[in-house]
Amino acid sequence: MQTLNVELGDRRYPIHIGRGLLAQAALILPHLKRKQVAIVTNTTVAPLYLEKLAQPLRDAGVAVISIVLPDGEAYKNSATLNLIYDALLENRCERSTTLIALGGGVVGDLTGYAAATYLRGVPFVQVPTTLLSQVDSSVGGKTGINHPLGKNMIGAFYQPQLVLADIDTLHTLPERELAAGLAEVIKYGLIRDLPFFEWLEAHIDKLTALDTDAMRYAIYRSCENKAEVVAADERESGERALLNLGHTFGHAIENGMGYGVWLHGEAVAAGTMMAADLSRRMGWLSDAEVARMDAIFRAARLPLEPPGLGADRYLDLMGLDKKVLDGKIRLVLQQGIGRSVVSSDYDVAALRATLESPLHG
Amino acid sequence: MQTLNVELGDRRYPIHIGRGLLAQAALILPHLKRKQVAIVTNTTVAPLYLEKLAQPLRDAGVAVISIVLPDGEAYKNSATLNLIYDALLENRCERSTTLIALGGGVVGDLTGYAAATYLRGVPFVQVPTTLLSQVDSSVGGKTGINHPLGKNMIGAFYQPQLVLADIDTLHTLPERELAAGLAEVIKYGLIRDLPFFEWLEAHIDKLTALDTDAMRYAIYRSCENKAEVVAADERESGERALLNLGHTFGHAIENGMGYGVWLHGEAVAAGTMMAADLSRRMGWLSDAEVARMDAIFRAARLPLEPPGLGADRYLDLMGLDKKVLDGKIRLVLQQGIGRSVVSSDYDVAALRATLESPLHG
Repeated sequence: MQTLNVELGDRRYPIHIGRGLLAQAALILPHLKRKQVAIVTNTTVAPLYLEKLAQPLRDAGVAVISIVLPDGEAYKNSATLNLIYDALLENRCERSTTLIALGGGVVGDLTGYAAATYLRGVPFVQVPTTLLSQVDSSVGGKTGINHPLGKNMIGAFYQPQLVLADIDTLHTLPERELAAGLAEVIKYGLIRDLPFFEWLEAHIDKLTALDTDAMRYAIYRSCENKAEVVAADERESGERALLNLGHTFGHAIENGMGYGVWLHGEAVAAGTMMAADLSRRMGWLSDAEVARMDAIFRAARLPLEPPGLGADRYLDLMGLDKKVLDGKIRLVLQQGIGRSVVSSDYDVAALRATLESPLHG
Repeated sequence: MQTLNVELGDRRYPIHIGRGLLAQAALILPHLKRKQVAIVTNTTVAPLYLEKLAQPLRDAGVAVISIVLPDGEAYKNSATLNLIYDALLENRCERSTTLIALGGGVVGDLTGYAAATYLRGVPFVQVPTTLLSQVDSSVGGKTGINHPLGKNMIGAFYQPQLVLADIDTLHTLPERELAAGLAEVIKYGLIRDLPFFEWLEAHIDKLTALDTDAMRYAIYRSCENKAEVVAADERESGERALLNLGHTFGHAIENGMGYGVWLHGEAVAAGTMMAADLSRRMGWLSDAEVARMDAIFRAARLPLEPPGLGADRYLDLMGLDKKVLDGKIRLVLQQGIGRSVVSSDYDVAALRATLESPLHG
């Protein structure tokens, strides 16, 4: 087991990474205010891991409530959130009850947001079971739900007490989901860590084969990168925006196609290549660098061809994004591999060209 | 105009108290990140004050969106919250858009919660138009909504940029609402400020007659008391709980009778007398002190006779309250006027007697 501490002043919290962590109640017990937890999970994860997590807690004298939600991004909404509130109230959960999110990013975002807002805030623990949530959504305190008019429009910044990233859970992950998680891993190399990108180029096949040592290192280094960014900029006023590489384009793809058609990580990968294409058109990125990016995403088995929605539809979808500043869309672009920048200083004609025909300009 | 600063580290904010503040755009302008605001108000307040607030802002070049909600505690729920989100999204409001709450506690709680959660947090300004919201809900950062199973069950701690308490708005306030606000004013004297309580005994008639100087002083001193408590204990782990004097009983009254039948301040007054009754039965408060409390609430024209729900129903209603600690109900009780304490060390038989027959034991 490796442990990384996210430094957020009085809200410092540890991320443990390793095998079999799910069943180690001793890791969770010191963080409980009282011996009552509500485990929030979904119908896919529950049969695989709910009892593995719950039974050792019960054996340690913890009262365990479980809340099983429907599975999927389409359920990351206020109706599902209300299912959590209802269960917590019906079970008379109090301010000292700890919520535990067991599942992927959707479960984590919903549970974290419920924890942030139930009784104006209760403690919570993240037990992410997908690669994407282990390297991304469980670090940094972003929680929230979607709205019919936009993704993640309602939410809160709220930090967990503890994150348990159990590598064993990745063995039950569908291949598409593993690839989507690798897209976020690769992102950390692209935005700020060239040596990690080079390590990934050398080890991408081990990661797709779920080699334990390679995977633990990739998760640790990803979390380390994200933790550094988040600790420096908790409220996303500056550097944290770099983490959104590929996300403005990616959200437009997800939203334009209907949530759930593309996985988030798939959309981010395709969106990152759109950002690369725009960067190349502006002379910030060489053809060779674009080719390296293309190659590693393909080796990770990610789809890179964005849907042809047309530039006008893309611009409309991107206009609703949170990363808008005074009406002007800011984008995360590449100035070489390992160096992303946030910029609104780009050529609009080049942007339209990218949106009309990415990778073909 | 008097100004009080609430000290919350980097989130220090001013409360301005005086006449005609609503129309002084110059007080608001320095707090805007960009010249766009969304004013949230209700159907009762809008015809009285919306244009008085909005026009000077427009004259100063600010883009103003208004969101007019239905009026009443019954609408402090997720459906009304969604009306705010929808309007903000339809108008493409961004992270730099400031929300302005114009109205009483319900508008303030809803708007503050929308501000806390829209795009994970946007700035907001409170313009409370009732005495209750001027002395209570606009100070301290509590925001939230009700749930069918309990009041204020969903919410966040979130501080405004600025509070404008305009005394002129009290002239359009119904008498019952003025009295409900006075209940909270009296509360500050009871919990921690005996000299203020004595001043109130001498000036209660001026306050019910809306004397300007008396009212400004009462609001200032109430906010000062609350600000001191909140600054010392922002997250309600200790002293802040004293502000809930009368609230555990009061919430039970409001919930038991159905929200909206009793005004919040009315329920708090009756609940405070129930707490006084229990304190008297335990020998913590003299008959003479109970009589002084009874007299000032009556002079403020508040109803003091709680509904006869029966002890079992009361206990059930109180069990859902947030101030529960490990299954034991903690209550705010009186050890003399000007000295409240949080205690779970009370006689349960005495509590049942109070619930069965307050003021008659």
